[in-house]
Amino acid sequence: MNSQERLDFPFFKQEKLIYLDSAATSQKPQSVIDSLVNYYSYNNANIHRGVYALAQKTTDQFEMVRNQVAHFINAKKSEEIVFTKGATQSLNWVVFGYFARFLKPGDEILISVMEHHSNLVPWQELAKKTGAELRYVKLDQNEQLDLDDLLTKLNSRVKVVSIAQVSNVLGCINPVKKIASLAHKFGALVVVDGAQAVGHMTVDVGELDCDFYCFSGHKMFGPTGIGVLYGKYKLLDQLKPVEYGGEMIDEVDYQASTFKELPLRLEAGTQNIAGVIGLGAAIDYLNQIGLKRISKHNQEITELAFDKLRKIPGLKIYGSANPKEHHDVISFNLAGIHPHDAATVLDSFGVEVRAGHHCAEVLMRYLKIPACLRASFHLYNDESDVLQLVSAIKEVQRFFKHGTV
Amino acid sequence: MNSQERLDFPFFKQEKLIYLDSAATSQKPQSVIDSLVNYYSYNNANIHRGVYALAQKTTDQFEMVRNQVAHFINAKKSEEIVFTKGATQSLNWVVFGYFARFLKPGDEILISVMEHHSNLVPWQELAKKTGAELRYVKLDQNEQLDLDDLLTKLNSRVKVVSIAQVSNVLGCINPVKKIASLAHKFGALVVVDGAQAVGHMTVDVGELDCDFYCFSGHKMFGPTGIGVLYGKYKLLDQLKPVEYGGEMIDEVDYQASTFKELPLRLEAGTQNIAGVIGLGAAIDYLNQIGLKRISKHNQEITELAFDKLRKIPGLKIYGSANPKEHHDVISFNLAGIHPHDAATVLDSFGVEVRAGHHCAEVLMRYLKIPACLRASFHLYNDESDVLQLVSAIKEVQRFFKHGTV
Repeated sequence: MNSQERLDFPFFKQEKLIYLDSAATSQKPQSVIDSLVNYYSYNNANIHRGVYALAQKTTDQFEMVRNQVAHFINAKKSEEIVFTKGATQSLNWVVFGYFARFLKPGDEILISVMEHHSNLVPWQELAKKTGAELRYVKLDQNEQLDLDDLLTKLNSRVKVVSIAQVSNVLGCINPVKKIASLAHKFGALVVVDGAQAVGHMTVDVGELDCDFYCFSGHKMFGPTGIGVLYGKYKLLDQLKPVEYGGEMIDEVDYQASTFKELPLRLEAGTQNIAGVIGLGAAIDYLNQIGLKRISKHNQEITELAFDKLRKIPGLKIYGSANPKEHHDVISFNLAGIHPHDAATVLDSFGVEVRAGHHCAEVLMRYLKIPACLRASFHLYNDESDVLQLVSAIKEVQRFFKHGTV
Repeated sequence: MNSQERLDFPFFKQEKLIYLDSAATSQKPQSVIDSLVNYYSYNNANIHRGVYALAQKTTDQFEMVRNQVAHFINAKKSEEIVFTKGATQSLNWVVFGYFARFLKPGDEILISVMEHHSNLVPWQELAKKTGAELRYVKLDQNEQLDLDDLLTKLNSRVKVVSIAQVSNVLGCINPVKKIASLAHKFGALVVVDGAQAVGHMTVDVGELDCDFYCFSGHKMFGPTGIGVLYGKYKLLDQLKPVEYGGEMIDEVDYQASTFKELPLRLEAGTQNIAGVIGLGAAIDYLNQIGLKRISKHNQEITELAFDKLRKIPGLKIYGSANPKEHHDVISFNLAGIHPHDAATVLDSFGVEVRAGHHCAEVLMRYLKIPACLRASFHLYNDESDVLQLVSAIKEVQRFFKHGTV
């Protein structure tokens, strides 16, 4: 159960912190940090522009990462991979670059009540802009996506179903493959927010048959400021650039310009080159450990935590009652204690969990809670982290009962 | 004349390369690289979200860099500083987030023929979208911005003048303060592309009295994937977000959301936190050396290069005939030799210059050349770099005359 890999991450070599906030951002293995140092120290050059050897070498390395990402999520070709600032930007480009072109009054957008703001607020804006209606799939009694409700709401007016593959609060895996198959029957396209899935499990966009898939580097052991937008080539090819500038153009005349083919057409200006190099190193690391092993480790830790947490009196877990349906995320509250207060006291014991709405305010409204605590796990967490979380929670309860620890 | 600071940059500790492409991207001092390593190794946490101490500490560090940037360019307050992916994104947000709201048919957009594509193609798209007309200020006989032409074209229909502070091809400094004063008399706003200025000279947005100012981190010794958008508060406050997601919202309900105040309203999703930390380290480094000293050093190197280059038969320099009007950039061609061929041979001598249109195709059309070579300089370049550039150019000329070096 202990993570052998913990020491690959320099973060865990310092004073012991119980880092349980990987759903917000993951720690980074030494190899990813080294890749950035190496790039900035010895290989730094702008790409796609220089004829000199260093610029070519860096361009090759950048484009190799694109191939690597394509292979990692099983895209058909590397041109289906566009680098962005993060999952939020990827989702915004899908919404405003693609769907803004095609939606009209009377059309429907279908998302779920568990979506992260990045897969919710852009659709609200699109609905306002186009006159399309934004509808929500609710949860079933087990606080999982209600597939019956989804079926009821699917109809030929629905042009897009956009859904998280893994909820950042409930930790459930949504059946994207099934949803895509249903949605496609009605002519709707399927967008997936994969921010919480990539790096935690094998993601295969070919098998899922989704139309767009969006994720971030920083939650999968990679750097901040880098994300990926995958789209099926024919669809991505119709995505209008949201940004214009250098390197995405073919020819520029005084009044009009023509643009390059995918994927460069969508990558205006100097890219986060180091971010891309670091993302490549993160994928190398994930492949080296193996996603199956990561998945198994994370699942064991999550189930252990679930098992111990549910035995604590006054602790309520959100989402499924089945620990196997929590993927590396457990959200909960403590009776009579505000989650922010709880998190502050947990922090005093070195336990770092998140408190708040977790960028999922609609879900909070749906669950009728103002906020909750969230513990999230990844490869470097071990049994000792779980035991310390549990013991710190008991101290929190004692503190708020007695006013002192 | 030799740069004492050269060895602050690990890039120059390796096999001697004559790096003359800082206008595309600068090399990074060790302190910037160290700041990234330190962040990712020991302080990595997501910001503005966590109540635990590490998340707070990182949030404080992030916001301190915002203050530092505000101070560095003399913005009135830190809320006028928005972090972006780079100058290209900053410019796009000004165009599509601000001016797209206000421009209408009959309005005019005034830019110059020397603009980089990032300050040109977005305006073309905006003109198409709004029906406004895109007009160009031409160059004078000295290949500098023609202020008389600017005056002729300024009228009450002009809603915006957008201009580079320093041209990435001609190396001239455009008189932004004067332009702003003229434009404001006609009620036009002024946008400045400062990508080639920041880090090379003191930039004071208060003194310039420009309305928006955009720049990138990676050209000022900072990381890739980070940029800055400055705007006067009242104007920036009217800039509609181009991206929506986490952390920029105030309240999210099923059908509508409210948004935070500046600057967070414009920073949707997890930011390039490491990029911001690294940008702060770059500003520290620039301040430690001093912008006056950097400016003086770069000017000496540029003038030396100019003086030696103009003596080479068959070499034509673009822009002013006065070396003092070239700021760290000299663009040129060799008679009878295609710039790409020249750059390839120069590379074989370890001299890294850029060949192409330098993302300024309209300027190439205006100058009636397909492309040119560009040598650009920064703090770490020294006299020896210039001498090797000159001697390699002579070898290139010999090569293409005799077919062999």
